Amino acid sequence: MNTTIEEVAQKALECQETCNQCFSACLKEDHVKMMAECIRLDRDCADICGLVASFSSRESRFTKELIQLCAEICQACGDECQKHDHDHCQECAKVCHECAEVCRAYVA
Amino acid sequence: MNTTIEEVAQKALECQETCNQCFSACLKEDHVKMMAECIRLDRDCADICGLVASFSSRESRFTKELIQLCAEICQACGDECQKHDHDHCQECAKVCHECAEVCRAYVA
Amino acid sequence: MNTTIEEVAQKALECQETCNQCFSACLKEDHVKMMAECIRLDRDCADICGLVASFSSRESRFTKELIQLCAEICQACGDECQKHDHDHCQECAKVCHECAEVCRAYVA
Amino acid sequence: MNTTIEEVAQKALECQETCNQCFSACLKEDHVKMMAECIRLDRDCADICGLVASFSSRESRFTKELIQLCAEICQACGDECQKHDHDHCQECAKVCHECAEVCRAYVA
Repeated sequence: MNTTIEEVAQKALECQETCNQCFSACLKEDHVKMMAECIRLDRDCADICGLVASFSSRESRFTKELIQLCAEICQACGDECQKHDHDHCQECAKVCHECAEVCRAYVA
Repeated sequence: MNTTIEEVAQKALECQETCNQCFSACLKEDHVKMMAECIRLDRDCADICGLVASFSSRESRFTKELIQLCAEICQACGDECQKHDHDHCQECAKVCHECAEVCRAYVA
Repeated sequence: MNTTIEEVAQKALECQETCNQCFSACLKEDHVKMMAECIRLDRDCADICGLVASFSSRESRFTKELIQLCAEICQACGDECQKHDHDHCQECAKVCHECAEVCRAYVA
Repeated sequence: MNTTIEEVAQKALECQETCNQCFSACLKEDHVKMMAECIRLDRDCADICGLVASFSSRESRFTKELIQLCAEICQACGDECQKHDHDHCQECAKVCHECAEVCRAYVA
């Protein structure tokens, strides 16, 4: 069963939202220092996911290349989030990894 | 019944998608010249709606001000789209006007 | 002497860059916790400044409204940065306040 | 002589501006239909160039990957613009090709 571009766009928007929520929650934690890399990657991931949704809905001819890069950034963000016990990080890791997988499935 | 920030963010994402689809469809029409203003406003509206969704999910303190501006741009985009008979324009007009209303309800 | 839209766009791009550099530098500080509000506002300010530059160069009819909001966010970001002694915060405060002023002068 | 990240960011911002000006000018032409692909690519190129400038100034670890994709989009946008005689398209072609080259030199 093939992954559609609509599934990618939908998951990318969910991932953007989750990354932004994690970004905001990380900045409220007591030990923000520990979350620095998470905060950086949340922002990168939210930006690229937002652009994927925009490129796909306007049928850009570079949608596929962007999705390929999105898979990498989602994977890295998910891997980083997974290291932290906070609920928002665990939730973000889950959604980022799902998004990475959907992106890879689409590109394949 | 109050309009929640989640409703605004959800509608803004729907509006971003619809504006991007309208942007792409306008560029495929035979008379693109007539659609120039629609194409411009679709892009403006998609950009501001995307930023509203991002600001709200990361709890920016300027979310409300941005939503106020979003209401204006959605209204203008919906008004322009409404002038054109194409299905994508009529659909876009509907969603833009809904988004403008949700934004105004939230700010009020 | 009037402030031109080109001056606004130029200053907004400088402000976007400075805010992003401050964002990154804040995340390298020992006491990131203290910088949380600065990190948030750096991101908001960079986003809105980037959109101002984009709206102005494509002659969006909402450029002026966006610049008005940009002035507010730049002012808030500059005020927050000013509280911190780090060179990157002081530099960011300076550029944000300049950008706020250029924006206000243009809108006036 | 090596290409620095500052040179990439600087050229990307110039390219974003030129693409946005070309986008707006294309929509004022008599034969907008002919410019449809140019309008699409101008938007894609402006978006990716803006993100490159943002990623680089905040020292994202994905800056290089994004620059690689930016080179491709700039090349495609420059190739399309080059087909059209309008001054804004010729100017945009020149800057896009320069940006593609700077991006490739940096990644190499």
